[in-house]
Amino acid sequence: MKEACGLFGTYGCDGAAQKAYLGLFALQHRGEESAGIVVSDDRKIRSRKGMGLLTDVIDADDFTELPGHMAIGHVRYSTTGSPKPQNVQPLVIEYSQGLVAVAHNGTLTNAYRLRRQYEARGSIFQTSTDSEVIVHLMADPEYLGKPDHVARCLAQLEGAFSFLIMTKRRLIAARDRHGFRPLSLGDLDGAPVVASETCAFDLLGARYVRDIEPGEMITIDERGVVSERFCPPDQVKKAHCIFEHIYFARPDSRIFGENCQLVRTRLGEILAREHPVDADVVMPLPDSGNPAALGFAHESGIPFQFGVIRNHYVGRTFIQPRSRSFSVRVKLNVIADIVRGKRVVVVDDSIVRGTTSRTRLGMLREAGATEIHLRISSPPIRHPCFFGIDFPTRTELVAAARTVEEVREFIGVDSLGYISVEGLLSAVSGAPCDYCTACFTGDYPCPVADPVEKLALERH
Amino acid sequence: MKEACGLFGTYGCDGAAQKAYLGLFALQHRGEESAGIVVSDDRKIRSRKGMGLLTDVIDADDFTELPGHMAIGHVRYSTTGSPKPQNVQPLVIEYSQGLVAVAHNGTLTNAYRLRRQYEARGSIFQTSTDSEVIVHLMADPEYLGKPDHVARCLAQLEGAFSFLIMTKRRLIAARDRHGFRPLSLGDLDGAPVVASETCAFDLLGARYVRDIEPGEMITIDERGVVSERFCPPDQVKKAHCIFEHIYFARPDSRIFGENCQLVRTRLGEILAREHPVDADVVMPLPDSGNPAALGFAHESGIPFQFGVIRNHYVGRTFIQPRSRSFSVRVKLNVIADIVRGKRVVVVDDSIVRGTTSRTRLGMLREAGATEIHLRISSPPIRHPCFFGIDFPTRTELVAAARTVEEVREFIGVDSLGYISVEGLLSAVSGAPCDYCTACFTGDYPCPVADPVEKLALERH
Amino acid sequence: MKEACGLFGTYGCDGAAQKAYLGLFALQHRGEESAGIVVSDDRKIRSRKGMGLLTDVIDADDFTELPGHMAIGHVRYSTTGSPKPQNVQPLVIEYSQGLVAVAHNGTLTNAYRLRRQYEARGSIFQTSTDSEVIVHLMADPEYLGKPDHVARCLAQLEGAFSFLIMTKRRLIAARDRHGFRPLSLGDLDGAPVVASETCAFDLLGARYVRDIEPGEMITIDERGVVSERFCPPDQVKKAHCIFEHIYFARPDSRIFGENCQLVRTRLGEILAREHPVDADVVMPLPDSGNPAALGFAHESGIPFQFGVIRNHYVGRTFIQPRSRSFSVRVKLNVIADIVRGKRVVVVDDSIVRGTTSRTRLGMLREAGATEIHLRISSPPIRHPCFFGIDFPTRTELVAAARTVEEVREFIGVDSLGYISVEGLLSAVSGAPCDYCTACFTGDYPCPVADPVEKLALERH
Amino acid sequence: MKEACGLFGTYGCDGAAQKAYLGLFALQHRGEESAGIVVSDDRKIRSRKGMGLLTDVIDADDFTELPGHMAIGHVRYSTTGSPKPQNVQPLVIEYSQGLVAVAHNGTLTNAYRLRRQYEARGSIFQTSTDSEVIVHLMADPEYLGKPDHVARCLAQLEGAFSFLIMTKRRLIAARDRHGFRPLSLGDLDGAPVVASETCAFDLLGARYVRDIEPGEMITIDERGVVSERFCPPDQVKKAHCIFEHIYFARPDSRIFGENCQLVRTRLGEILAREHPVDADVVMPLPDSGNPAALGFAHESGIPFQFGVIRNHYVGRTFIQPRSRSFSVRVKLNVIADIVRGKRVVVVDDSIVRGTTSRTRLGMLREAGATEIHLRISSPPIRHPCFFGIDFPTRTELVAAARTVEEVREFIGVDSLGYISVEGLLSAVSGAPCDYCTACFTGDYPCPVADPVEKLALERH
Repeated sequence: MKEACGLFGTYGCDGAAQKAYLGLFALQHRGEESAGIVVSDDRKIRSRKGMGLLTDVIDADDFTELPGHMAIGHVRYSTTGSPKPQNVQPLVIEYSQGLVAVAHNGTLTNAYRLRRQYEARGSIFQTSTDSEVIVHLMADPEYLGKPDHVARCLAQLEGAFSFLIMTKRRLIAARDRHGFRPLSLGDLDGAPVVASETCAFDLLGARYVRDIEPGEMITIDERGVVSERFCPPDQVKKAHCIFEHIYFARPDSRIFGENCQLVRTRLGEILAREHPVDADVVMPLPDSGNPAALGFAHESGIPFQFGVIRNHYVGRTFIQPRSRSFSVRVKLNVIADIVRGKRVVVVDDSIVRGTTSRTRLGMLREAGATEIHLRISSPPIRHPCFFGIDFPTRTELVAAARTVEEVREFIGVDSLGYISVEGLLSAVSGAPCDYCTACFTGDYPCPVADPVEKLALERH
Repeated sequence: MKEACGLFGTYGCDGAAQKAYLGLFALQHRGEESAGIVVSDDRKIRSRKGMGLLTDVIDADDFTELPGHMAIGHVRYSTTGSPKPQNVQPLVIEYSQGLVAVAHNGTLTNAYRLRRQYEARGSIFQTSTDSEVIVHLMADPEYLGKPDHVARCLAQLEGAFSFLIMTKRRLIAARDRHGFRPLSLGDLDGAPVVASETCAFDLLGARYVRDIEPGEMITIDERGVVSERFCPPDQVKKAHCIFEHIYFARPDSRIFGENCQLVRTRLGEILAREHPVDADVVMPLPDSGNPAALGFAHESGIPFQFGVIRNHYVGRTFIQPRSRSFSVRVKLNVIADIVRGKRVVVVDDSIVRGTTSRTRLGMLREAGATEIHLRISSPPIRHPCFFGIDFPTRTELVAAARTVEEVREFIGVDSLGYISVEGLLSAVSGAPCDYCTACFTGDYPCPVADPVEKLALERH
Repeated sequence: MKEACGLFGTYGCDGAAQKAYLGLFALQHRGEESAGIVVSDDRKIRSRKGMGLLTDVIDADDFTELPGHMAIGHVRYSTTGSPKPQNVQPLVIEYSQGLVAVAHNGTLTNAYRLRRQYEARGSIFQTSTDSEVIVHLMADPEYLGKPDHVARCLAQLEGAFSFLIMTKRRLIAARDRHGFRPLSLGDLDGAPVVASETCAFDLLGARYVRDIEPGEMITIDERGVVSERFCPPDQVKKAHCIFEHIYFARPDSRIFGENCQLVRTRLGEILAREHPVDADVVMPLPDSGNPAALGFAHESGIPFQFGVIRNHYVGRTFIQPRSRSFSVRVKLNVIADIVRGKRVVVVDDSIVRGTTSRTRLGMLREAGATEIHLRISSPPIRHPCFFGIDFPTRTELVAAARTVEEVREFIGVDSLGYISVEGLLSAVSGAPCDYCTACFTGDYPCPVADPVEKLALERH
Repeated sequence: MKEACGLFGTYGCDGAAQKAYLGLFALQHRGEESAGIVVSDDRKIRSRKGMGLLTDVIDADDFTELPGHMAIGHVRYSTTGSPKPQNVQPLVIEYSQGLVAVAHNGTLTNAYRLRRQYEARGSIFQTSTDSEVIVHLMADPEYLGKPDHVARCLAQLEGAFSFLIMTKRRLIAARDRHGFRPLSLGDLDGAPVVASETCAFDLLGARYVRDIEPGEMITIDERGVVSERFCPPDQVKKAHCIFEHIYFARPDSRIFGENCQLVRTRLGEILAREHPVDADVVMPLPDSGNPAALGFAHESGIPFQFGVIRNHYVGRTFIQPRSRSFSVRVKLNVIADIVRGKRVVVVDDSIVRGTTSRTRLGMLREAGATEIHLRISSPPIRHPCFFGIDFPTRTELVAAARTVEEVREFIGVDSLGYISVEGLLSAVSGAPCDYCTACFTGDYPCPVADPVEKLALERH
């Protein structure tokens, strides 16, 4: 599965571009495909965007060309083969009221329908992203000039969205009525900062204040921070993406009210209780399996070892021979002296297609493990996500049409245990009904887009 | 003054991108700021555009990513300080009917008014160029789906335009009702080609067929070439830009029915008759002054010499000390052994600000010329152009508020002679009323945009 | 402290350049400053070298320009401020017998003296590295043409060296008589491979055969692999660099006969016995402290946690604010929810200057740790290394002139325990006298270069 | 044929690197393959070199890293397929006395013999250029430390050389005893400057002082400029390369005492007398044929026209279809309206292989010329040059084994006339015996290298 996007914004601090750079740097894991920063000095909006990692896109010289005390930034993962430069966010679009910059994390489930409406009226779209419809709503004479202009536009949108919207003198942050994606408010020496994850605050030395609420929109300008609701309280229905806790978010972030690393360690403990096994050693597939493996080891009393080593140099410029087994070997190497002759419990966070797991665990077998017991700290993934996660199609999801026993056979391990949905929900502190677990259960918290629409627009 | 833009299009030949590359290469003198090629293989439109010379923007690998049998291309000069990448032409814009690519040469005098109308309806513009309005017209439900869809849209436009418009399966070429800018039709082994100047045909080995007529629009698709009029015959009023003959067009091009080099040589002969002088040697300021200087020498009987040498290596990466005199010296060097002790006639095509001329002729004085007689193969430039030439403002035009004698004094020569408007018009084969000479006379062939509008949009 | 260099060579396999690329990729941790590959197809020697990571230096197109069945490669760390391109290894030098390529890991302690001798005879040096003297020795008429030509030259050298020397048709690998640096021989489907660490064999799928012996030189050509001694047996005196086990080598490598990760885990166990403490949690400074922290946790029974998270995106293009505390924070982040209110044992592999440790442990204090107990899996570093490790000068080494108590105070922790030299030597399987521990004890296994000489030449 | 190299040096002026940049820029026509600048600030020698045009190699940032009041620079053309970066001049080599930088224009005919002698003594060479031997001579204990150290070394060299040699505190300029290549001394506001051509002085605003004499060496340091002879007067034997006047040097340079443009114009006049013809128009192949064509027109009374136009945008990044005729067409275009139905005299400076001439004149024929009379302002080239010009091999030289009539037939013109050797020598002001005309006559002014040696070393 692929990463979601990351957002960062700040208002009222010197060198806002540098702050955005650091904030986005901490969020890089949420999207490696493109990055962008847009700033304003109250008079002019300037931007620097490009394909690639943040550090590929921005260099030190750029800061002098990005003056201003307010900034928003975005790191993005896009799904289709050839991502287009014009889709790189934040989008910067001119409409009748001047320039507006938009950064979006999530998927708008009614974007396609809105787009067709506007096109029928003669409007022209600049990107193939669903995010652009917010600007067309804002330019629509039906909403323009009304009080609560932006809130009215946000109320037209359905699906998952955390939005940062910046005009020359104002910064707006909003989160959909389900709170699918995280979005937090912090304080950097008096200046408000907004970020997808709190690890961005840590890097900047900012203080975490609170999460933006589902259905809330905050407006930051020279008068300060104003909060309002764009959605009536009875329509707010929490559906936090549980996958943020399982895999997406950085372990040091506070997500939906609690630290991810601790949640993940608890998942390992629960897993050990749900699927105990007699073995010699517990080891993670690094680094995402680390905390759950540790929890498993603590709960089971089986010793923890680092039997698989990760190569930190693997990056996009590495030229690798074309073979799946090589592609796994270059990222991970097994220490045979640790594995040889042992009954091994391997803990990982999830199985998607199953092919990577199969190859990785095959390396352990080759290195001499006598038994391999795979434990997964998420339930089987069986349904598509319409709210911002780029799972492969159902036919590619190994668990979609297979029993656990069939998955075990496919991967080639001696035993396989997934955590249960109940176990999963018991590891987090919120009420079970506050989380979206649709990818495991198929119970979607809101109506989902027609698949044709989904294909017609790119996620961002 | 700055160059106009250059257009090239072709339909129905293999490797259309390469053809466009060569065609644009021959037109590079019409715009050095950006370049772009858009192709179609009937199924998909692809493009490659960028800032800089064509050879900076396109490299050999690009051709494999630009398959197709039809292509349009553009080289552009833009006026304002920091030209924007999104303004690079051909514009490629998606509207409700799919992608459309547009290349434009000229200036639309009613673009600002049309833009404001569309913005008031909620439409969003992607560029700051006047060219984009044609796409909004095409997307307008008022015109969309009507017979003669594009012709109706073109009929809404005022000012100077040569347009190439390409959709997935069709190429359209059109020229405004005045024929301000040149646009010719050629034949490349059976495939139609369209170009701003015929030198593009020569490079490709294509045959010149005819000029696109003022007010004519030709449509090229699988059914062949169809010509139609988007403007009633009584509204066609020829106003060919005489500056194409004086300076813009390449000397080997056939423009408005005749070869530029021959016209320029005749201008030198007429100039010699209008402003004779007793001197030892005639020399051009290379290379633009070459043919007129030769004509002057032939008519006057004064020997021609190359007394000033041009450095061919000067390009945008040369790092030069900041001084006007240096900046002139690095481009041109005077051969003192030719100039010393001589009465010199120097022939150039035009004087704009006068400062460059003053510095250049100062070099001749330093090198020992005893008398310097400057002859200019265009009349004094005194009025702005609203049809695609980027003259400086009136206050910067040296002749705008000065008599010829005052200009002579400013430049510091012993005598100065401009060709007369009558002399100029006698050098070309068309009727005098078929040319626009507004920059000399102030007589504009059509209503011109309000200056505020002109500033609001960039020329292309 | 800085990394040593890495060597890789192979003979007799198709696409030797790709093999060298993969081998060096696995050795990247031994030197990030420059990289180079030299190949031969029996007729011509070709090379590709440059500053930066291997993946910056070599791209896919390079392979087609590097044909051949034999290759040597090098990754390098250099000490002085502005490393010079001409020093990038493998050196490729032409002498009277043709081209020779040289890759060197270590420091020659008599290089300066040899260089001065050759310069006095009129010879000209191309680099400022000590490695170049081997080529001058090879070109010296005194040795040239003699039987055992290269062995005679190697016998003139003193200090630490693993050498790969390649001519058009032959590959030579040699290791100094002390065996300071590791160098192993492997087998890749029948083709001999040589590498600084066995992790290179794992990535290639090659089989580990044996280590090159101290004082041994092996010659590989069309006749096969021939081993000879360039040093009489009584002059071989093992002195393996113990720091390879503590820090340098990759945890999955087999060094001096045993796996590093296991040695490091044992160091943690010994450390727990030598310096026990009553605490709530054990955590490493990732990733180098991981195995020793785990050993400490196992031995002490104190739970292991990942309380500090490493950011994997930090690279050379990251633009960071200038402050030491920031520079630490960007690499590591503390999870306050794990540390708050706890008595924490932190395990790291070594302390060099002490300033980084101080800042890192300060982060734990800020996050709310009530006690911090630092345990180090190496003894205090008090003496310079003359055999290839780039420690800072004595005045910068925090332990050089301080007691352990003074170091504890400098770093600001509640207790500090270093492993003892005896404890360290008990963790490895070889005899204590087979290792060099001079940086802890000052007992150098061979005469060392005059410091002036050391400064005059760059390490490689 | 290919260009020779260009040298520039200066001592005692602020920003010497910028001065060298400008000086080399004026000399770019002498070598487009690589460029380099070396500076000294009395304490340290620094350099910036690379493949490509000067403006590709040096950018504005480089100047801040090239501080100093003395500089030498070089632009180079190399002959063989893949020119090597290490051969880029100025060579910067360290020998026992420190760094020395060397820039060389010409070919040393005894370089190969000297190199073999030094290699037999164990010396190692860094480049494959003949220029490097001067440094080995300087490092040789036989000369080192002797009075007149460098002069003694120069006296060992045979063949063609203009040398600039720079150490930390001293600049040396020397010219071989035949004066094959030009080298002039100028004055830039009190600071001495040395350049291959005087056009470099013009660009800098420096004053021409005199030529460095054949066999002269001047030393510039803090004590001023000192001239000495490294060769006894009776061994000085002038042999100025006449091809500098025919083609190499810039038309605005003063070479061997007189201006090139005037010499070239005289060549055209002589040519008109030696090979008169009845025709309608005279035209050059631009730009090298311009002055001779003008001289021919003046002398013959036949009108001069620019019938062939040169495209100034052709550069190394242009992607052209593979065909000789295209390759000619992209550089030059014929104006058919000028040529059609005319008897044309075409003047060019030389014919080398003949294939380019044939294609170019074929374009005139296609454009409708009724007769084509080719006139060449140099005699037939029939012999190789061993002194710095890179003619093709004899089998490729069209005139080497053909009569003039056979060449005429090969090229396909109605008549062909070459200037005679006597006519050529009558156009220059020096005594006929002061020029080298060996490429026309085979009479070499000094013994020439064995062809095997010539192949073994690259020209520079």
